[in-house]
This record gives sequence, structure tokens and C-alpha cells, in this order.
Amino acid sequence: RVNGDRLWDMLMDMAKIGPGIAGGNNRQTLTDADGEGRHLFKRWCEAAGMTVGVDKMGTMFATRPGSDPDALPVYIGSHLDTQPTGGKFDGVLGVLAGLEVIRSMNDLGIKTKHPIVVTNWANEEGARFAPAMLASGVFAGVHTIDYAYGRKDPEGKTYGDELKRIGWLGDEEVGARKMHAYFEYHIEQGPILEAEDKQIGVVTHCQGLWWLEFTLTGKEAHTGSTPMAMRVNAGLAFGRIMEKVQEIAMAEQPGAVAGVGQAFFTPNSRNVLPGKVVFTVDLRTPSQEKLDRMRAKIEAAATEVCEALGVGCSVEAVGHFDPVTFDPTLVGRVRGAAEKLGYSHMDIISGAGHDACWAAKLAPTTMIFCPCVDGLSHNEAEEISKDWASAGCDVLFHAVVETAEI
Amino acid sequence: RVNGDRLWDMLMDMAKIGPGIAGGNNRQTLTDADGEGRHLFKRWCEAAGMTVGVDKMGTMFATRPGSDPDALPVYIGSHLDTQPTGGKFDGVLGVLAGLEVIRSMNDLGIKTKHPIVVTNWANEEGARFAPAMLASGVFAGVHTIDYAYGRKDPEGKTYGDELKRIGWLGDEEVGARKMHAYFEYHIEQGPILEAEDKQIGVVTHCQGLWWLEFTLTGKEAHTGSTPMAMRVNAGLAFGRIMEKVQEIAMAEQPGAVAGVGQAFFTPNSRNVLPGKVVFTVDLRTPSQEKLDRMRAKIEAAATEVCEALGVGCSVEAVGHFDPVTFDPTLVGRVRGAAEKLGYSHMDIISGAGHDACWAAKLAPTTMIFCPCVDGLSHNEAEEISKDWASAGCDVLFHAVVETAEI
Ligand SMILES: NC(=O)NCCC(=O)O
Ligand SMILES: NC(=O)NCCC(=O)O
Repeated sequence: RVNGDRLWDMLMDMAKIGPGIAGGNNRQTLTDADGEGRHLFKRWCEAAGMTVGVDKMGTMFATRPGSDPDALPVYIGSHLDTQPTGGKFDGVLGVLAGLEVIRSMNDLGIKTKHPIVVTNWANEEGARFAPAMLASGVFAGVHTIDYAYGRKDPEGKTYGDELKRIGWLGDEEVGARKMHAYFEYHIEQGPILEAEDKQIGVVTHCQGLWWLEFTLTGKEAHTGSTPMAMRVNAGLAFGRIMEKVQEIAMAEQPGAVAGVGQAFFTPNSRNVLPGKVVFTVDLRTPSQEKLDRMRAKIEAAATEVCEALGVGCSVEAVGHFDPVTFDPTLVGRVRGAAEKLGYSHMDIISGAGHDACWAAKLAPTTMIFCPCVDGLSHNEAEEISKDWASAGCDVLFHAVVETAEI
Repeated sequence: RVNGDRLWDMLMDMAKIGPGIAGGNNRQTLTDADGEGRHLFKRWCEAAGMTVGVDKMGTMFATRPGSDPDALPVYIGSHLDTQPTGGKFDGVLGVLAGLEVIRSMNDLGIKTKHPIVVTNWANEEGARFAPAMLASGVFAGVHTIDYAYGRKDPEGKTYGDELKRIGWLGDEEVGARKMHAYFEYHIEQGPILEAEDKQIGVVTHCQGLWWLEFTLTGKEAHTGSTPMAMRVNAGLAFGRIMEKVQEIAMAEQPGAVAGVGQAFFTPNSRNVLPGKVVFTVDLRTPSQEKLDRMRAKIEAAATEVCEALGVGCSVEAVGHFDPVTFDPTLVGRVRGAAEKLGYSHMDIISGAGHDACWAAKLAPTTMIFCPCVDGLSHNEAEEISKDWASAGCDVLFHAVVETAEI
């Protein structure tokens, strides 16, 4: 078994960097705090005897060599970046559990045939730069690096410039590395494991996603002196589209979600009808058929709402991945490890997207889920217990060692 | 008649300060650009032989003395501040037309019994610091100066601090001045005069207003892994309330408007259901009865929508004025001047709020409206013609001279 106290201490130390305002974290991608978190992680990896490489997207790879020079590495990855009002565990748990696996192997003098690489993928959250899972997406050949470098935060700063600014532009070509297998340990970010009283989620699938960014164009006009009949009201169109999004998701129950997290009114003045409203619909389902249907329905509904109001409507997909099925052999190994260790477990579908979704395009991949209190995530109040954290880390340890071969 | 070319040149010179991005202006209250616009206005006033005083709210008063030391001044006022994406005429026309009246009187050697004071009220727009018409409101005793100083812009900067920072904190006690009469010349900001092909709007009333700032409290949660049934979705509540606001305004037609110009999502991240949505409903009508009823209906509807979704809902009135009836004698003088000068005119109700609404609490007050193209205002594309501008200025000139007595 791994050292659960040591894992917890690392989690708490990392949480001191980029503190939030309510007990969580604000360590968004390519901020100074992100840079500081990376330095701490690098120091810990080097102290555990690993060599740290960085690629041109800023992703960090800490390697523990294997005994066979020809064997491809087994990867354990997740992310250290957070939401603006994020928790202490989303992503961080998976990276530091990977490091704890290595430290436990060192303690126990375990040598493996395959090298093991602990990875901190850059910009998993996509909060500052859409889309999410950007660096793993470039690694998997889903996006070009030029596309990634050009992504802008709400202030207009680009990914490429900010990566240089914080000093974490590496020299490795992105995607040059080959993988034998990929594991990711993550909090569930949903309510199921806790409700079912299970310690381990054996993740079999991940639902697909669309991020649809709508730009509604109304007519900026005075709220007081513009008669109702003369309004070209982009705000009202936005309101109606939110209701449609809700209806469309409810019509696909169970197994589908959709909602709006981000919206910008322009000029955003109390006495000006908005000339522009930009917002993103986030829609997800494990079914490829539903995913396509929901996208089509939402776009059609938005067009209809806008036409009725004379509001201009354009849409850009700023994030997408298809539903993923994880590798049955690795899934079986995770399930087997949980069994062997005597942890309660259940199969589960990931509601959130993860770097594992892109890694799955490159190598056999799977994930392990840790329960989280009230299913709460993307919230500073996100919480897990030390026992939960270390149970999943034990399972990760066993499944990884089995895959890396002693 | 006044010098329409000279008035137009002043308007175009002032528009160079705080240019917008699309041909209009961004000269918001207590910004550096506002400070610069004030300096230009002061220079022009002094060149016209006036003395400029400034009060503790930053309002500027340029005085042309009268012949009777005991006669109270006739005021001509409006504002030089603009919306973030505002036009070149909203407010500015009234202040610079006041100055043109003085310059024309100088040219013609006209002396009046009553002094004439041209006033640039601070923070008329309320775009940066709610509520609108803040300085005239303090002047009229509607707000305390402490309340005004504490008003915050979206970045959290206070009115008091910003007034000092730009160097326009004056020494006059606010409201110490007494008025014989108050005139305000303004663009209509609506479509009626242009549609009716009238040069002059004789403003008889101003509709009342409520600005209701709602704070909706949802539960920040992951957009992907939070099942529909577990959501406490403040965004959806916001959407539904916008629809209700529309319905409530439509039910009070004709003679009522309501809409939402400003909204903030928190944390405003694509994959986080908003924990908080703050937005302002702007509702107006000339009928006191409707004003009260609409406010009550909107608050009740918001409460109902939020209760159904489990969303918290609080409301604060951040702006208010009751419907105003202008002084019949002054209204008659404006109508008479338009007649005498041969300008087409019609009686009209102001859709927007104006400093005149607060001045009306202190002295006989009225307004003159200038048509504007397509009724467009609070939009950089706001447009008027030079002929329109000078026609209204002629009417102002005659009504003011009549009131100030030769
Ligand atoms: N795990 C996680 O929250 N990733 C961010 C991308 C997403 O929204 O699913
Ligand atoms: N005239 C004008 O636009 N004033 C700002 C206050 C309001 O919204 O009516």
C-alpha cells in the first residue's frame, strides 16, 4: 500500500499555491501561481530520483527509468491547473498520486521493466483558454500547436505568449513521446460513488462533449427611450435560448446534461440594451447519437429564437470530444486491483472530460475515480477524505506496477 | 438665432476626447478622459467671460452674471460624461448648447437681470457608478453625499476616490446654490420626433424608473458531471426572469418598457454552473401606478422562478425616480419659442431620465428635445444633424432669455 499521509501532505502543500477566496484554489493555467506549482512539483520529482522534461505546450513529464531500454513507458497523468474558483483535488490528486506511486516504489525497492512517467498536462481546465485538455489534445494530434498558441484568455492574452512569460516553454516536440499505457486517477466530480458508498470508481467510458460558443448580435439602444416594439434584444434571446437548452437536455434524460457557465454582455451597462451577448453552452452525453442530436437541436433552437427577435446568431464549436470507451484490459486490471485490495468499487462513466480522453487515442488507457463530497467540483468547497484519496492511490499503484511489469 | 456652426464645431472638438471604437465616445464618469473634457469645457467657458465653480460632487457651474444682484440664476444644464460605447451628443449637446447661448448673448450684447449658469452635472449616465443622475440627485437632496462617495464601479473603485484622483473635487457645498429656473436641452434618444418629422420636442413629462439589481445564488458545480436533477442553476433562473420581464412589460403596453442591460456570471467559466448571477432590470413608465405595479410584478416573478429552481434571490433598488411633470409656464415658453421661430414641434414625454428630473424638485424646470437618427442612443452610432442641433439651441436661447429677463 502507498503512504496515504504523505500523499495528503503533498496535496495540502500544493493547495497553498494559488489559494482561492473560500478554501479552494485559483491556480489557473499559465498564471504565476501555475508556474510556482510547477516548480514545487519539479522539486518533488527530482527528489524522488526522476528526470523532468517539458514540451512545447508546457506539459511536464517526470520519468523513472525502467530496466528494459526498449520498453515504452507507462504514463500516470492529470493536471495541476485549476478553475478560477476551483478545488484542491480536481487534477492535483492524479498528478500527486502518480508521484506517491513512485515514492512508494522507491521505498519498496520495486524495479519495473517499463519506465514510468508522471505527467502534468498543461491547461486541462480550459477555464482561461478554451478548449479544455488543450495540451493533451495537441499531444494526441487533435489540435495543431499553432491553434493552441493562438487561443486567447478573456483579456486577449494568448496561450503562446503566456507560456513564455511564465518561463515554462519547453523544448520537447509535442507528441514525440510514445506510450505503452496511460492511467489517470481523478475525483469523480459527481455524486454517484458517494451515494452508492463505493471507495473506487472503475471508469469504463467518458461522455462526449460540445462547447458551443454563441454570439448574439442585437442593437445597442437606450433601455428607457427605446419602445418595446423597436428593440432588437440580444439579452432576451439569450434568456430564451437558456430555457431551450434546459428543455433539450431534459428531453434526453437519463444520460445527458447541458447548461451555460459563461456569458458576456456588451457594453454591459444598466441602461443599454446589449449590442452583443456571447455565451457558451456545455452539452454532454455518453451516447454519440444523442451528442449529435443535442448539438443540432440546440443550434436549431437558437436560430429560431433569434430569428423571431431579429437578433443575429452565430455559433463556433470551441471544444469537442466524442464519447470514449476505455481499454478493457486496463479496466479489468483496475477492477482486479480494487478486488484484491478489498476496496468497494463500481463501474462508472466519467461525466467530466479528462486528458485520458485524448491519451486513449494513442495507447491503452483507463481511469480510476475517487468519490467526492456531495458530488461537488469546480467549486472551492470541493472535498474528499484522506482515506478515499489513498484507497484510489493503492489501486493505481497495483494496476501500474502490473502494467509496467516487475 | 444662435451660431449653429460654432455649436457643431464645439461638439466635434469635445468628441475628440475619449473616442470610442466605432465613431462615438467612451468618456465615462471620473475617468481621465472625463477630466480632460472638463478642462476643455472650463477653458471655453472662461474664454466666454464666465467664472467656473465646482462642487464637492464634481459638478461644474459656469456663471454669466446678471444685472440684479438679488436675482437667482437661470440654469442650463446637462452632462459631458458618456456611456462606455456612447454617442457624441447624449448630454454633450445640452452643455455645449448652453455655452453657445452665452456666446450668442455676448455677440449680441444681451444683458439679463438674472445670472445664467451653464452646468455640467457629474455622473449623469450612471454607467460606471449607479445610479444615474447621481450628482444632481445629491444636489436635490435625494441622496446623501456619503452614499454618493461610496458608490462603486465594477472594479470596486469608489466615486469619492476617483473624483479626487482626476482632480475635480471642488469646494462648493452640494446643493447650496438656489435656482430661479432650470432648462435642459437633450437629444430625444428615441424615435418619435424623427418619425413625426418634428424639429423640436416640447418635453412635458419624464417617465419614472426603477433599477432593480438582482443577485441570484446558485450552486457552483461541474457542467459535465452534475446531473440535471442536482443542479441549482442560477443561469437558468436568470433566463426565465428575463422572459418574465418581457411579458410584464408587454402586458402594460403602451407606455411601459423593461429590459436587462447588465449581467455578470460568477465564476464565468464554461464548465462551471454559475454560483452567482447579478443583473439589473431597468423598468420605466410615465404612470406612477404602472411603475409600482411593474416593480411588484417583476419582484414576485423573480421570486417564483427562483423558488422553483432552489436558487437564492435578493434584490436591491439601485436607481429610482418617480414620473415627473415639468413646469407648465416654462413648457409654454419653449412651445412659444418654437412657434415664434417657425420650427415644427410636438409635445413629448421623455423616455430617458435626466438631471432635469431632480432639478424639477428645486425650481421650475423643463426640457427641449432634439430628434436623433433612428431613435438610436447609448450606441456609438448615435447621430443628429447640425440643423437639428441648432434649431433646438435657438429655442433654448429664446426661452432662457425670456426667463432671465432682459
Ligand atoms: N475534469 C475536468 O473538470 N476537466 C475540465 C474539462 C471538462 O469540463 O470536463
Ligand atoms: N439620458 C440618459 O440616457 N440618462 C441616463 C439615465 C437613464 O438611463 O435614463
